[in-house]
Amino acid sequence: MNYGAIEAGGTKMVCAVGDENGKFLDRAIFPTTTPSETIKLIIDYFKNKDISAVGIACFGPVDLDKSSKTYGYITSTPKRGWENFDIVGTVKRELGVPVGFDTDVNGSLLGEATYGCAKGVSDAIYITVGTGIGGGVMVNGKLLHGMLHPELGHMRIGKRDSDQGKSVCPFHDDCFEGLASGPSIESRWGKKADLLADDESVWKLEAEYIGTALVNYCMCLSPKKIILGGGVMHQKQLFPLIRKVFKEKNNGYISTELTRNLDEYIVPASLNDDQGILGALKLAMDAD
Amino acid sequence: MNYGAIEAGGTKMVCAVGDENGKFLDRAIFPTTTPSETIKLIIDYFKNKDISAVGIACFGPVDLDKSSKTYGYITSTPKRGWENFDIVGTVKRELGVPVGFDTDVNGSLLGEATYGCAKGVSDAIYITVGTGIGGGVMVNGKLLHGMLHPELGHMRIGKRDSDQGKSVCPFHDDCFEGLASGPSIESRWGKKADLLADDESVWKLEAEYIGTALVNYCMCLSPKKIILGGGVMHQKQLFPLIRKVFKEKNNGYISTELTRNLDEYIVPASLNDDQGILGALKLAMDAD
Repeated sequence: MNYGAIEAGGTKMVCAVGDENGKFLDRAIFPTTTPSETIKLIIDYFKNKDISAVGIACFGPVDLDKSSKTYGYITSTPKRGWENFDIVGTVKRELGVPVGFDTDVNGSLLGEATYGCAKGVSDAIYITVGTGIGGGVMVNGKLLHGMLHPELGHMRIGKRDSDQGKSVCPFHDDCFEGLASGPSIESRWGKKADLLADDESVWKLEAEYIGTALVNYCMCLSPKKIILGGGVMHQKQLFPLIRKVFKEKNNGYISTELTRNLDEYIVPASLNDDQGILGALKLAMDAD
Repeated sequence: MNYGAIEAGGTKMVCAVGDENGKFLDRAIFPTTTPSETIKLIIDYFKNKDISAVGIACFGPVDLDKSSKTYGYITSTPKRGWENFDIVGTVKRELGVPVGFDTDVNGSLLGEATYGCAKGVSDAIYITVGTGIGGGVMVNGKLLHGMLHPELGHMRIGKRDSDQGKSVCPFHDDCFEGLASGPSIESRWGKKADLLADDESVWKLEAEYIGTALVNYCMCLSPKKIILGGGVMHQKQLFPLIRKVFKEKNNGYISTELTRNLDEYIVPASLNDDQGILGALKLAMDAD
């Protein structure tokens, strides 16, 4: 059986056809312009590919509540043209197959939990630090939705006194995304993150924010594994710095076998940036 | 069928016998001194009361992992004599009945979810603000444990510049408990919270911390209801102030039917401080 997978982002749509073992047979990328243009390309791509279901891991906010009238909609996104767009309904109608649906970050977490470093882990979180900051959460083996879905990037973490920058979040003056996303680094230091790789002070401050956020997730969600992905996390020098801040900020309070071995507890994404599309593939397999 | 319920706190142990409808037939309170003294009083109380199971909602940290060798233990508590005490094993052995077990705050949440304001709500949180700050979390109708259990009071929220006080938490210089628990209020203002009821600045700052924490829980856990209990929350004037701070700090980012009606979303505990013992009773009913 083959399945369709869509990793729906604000810039591009990654589409792929894969089998039940997570092997991809084909893949294509389309730019995210307007829904009518972009969705037409996606539908044309999947038509005649004999897929039995589609999974969509989607930028948001999205409505994940199956009992809601707007289930499967992208809701209040700032991405022009896409707000209140019924992405699940449109794909289901055009392709005539079941559609699985979740947030992009829950998708990445599902990818890691199915094929990557969180395989067999019942409670895990996945944080992406890139253009934005977001996170997926798994509790008791199921992706957390609750009222809406987690918005981990918008937790208030407090700006450091030494930080000369300014939050880039239009909503919050000291949220994690506002202080530590790629655009925040660029705005504070005047260059893109990957041009600052050798500047220690950049990564020390970045690790301070990321490590603080991770301690807070640990206090709230008690995950058994914390996975970090996204463009900024390609700066591998961040990992030891983040673990150091985590240790300092936790200060021995949470003391388990897992937190005593932070090299295994706080880890990079393990699927070469395929965690999102692999999660979308799993959403297709689980669709009903 | 009758059940035994124990709300195990660091100061006192509330014990009760109740039926399957949540009606209590008897109740007793014992001081928490040493395990040998206190547990003897508890066992003697329940002996010959013909109970078919016991539920314990317990101060912590506790080990909730059924596959662990120390399941049912109170672990690294600062309460002298109680660390690494096998409370579940001892009660089970002495009374010869199944024992249900969870944290005190998960117990209170379970009480509210079974008999109180969170009845029928699949995803909710309960925060107690008193001698300490802690919280219980329900996701998809089940109490969250994860690696350990949530430690909501130890989330870092950042000390306000205007705050002349100092964190009272021995582990963290700006965690929620350190900045906003009863002892923190007393240390900052020089009087116990209930003697400060008329001082507006006390409750403005307190609401600032509580409201900030609640926004963060909303971003992390996406609950459908937030319940506030504990001694400090008896100051009813806090509720409108907290909702105001929540609204400001969220700043329209999370916008759902629930968050648009904060009077129903952020609510006081509804069971007259019986939420904990009622939760313990439910833990007994669910014990196996």
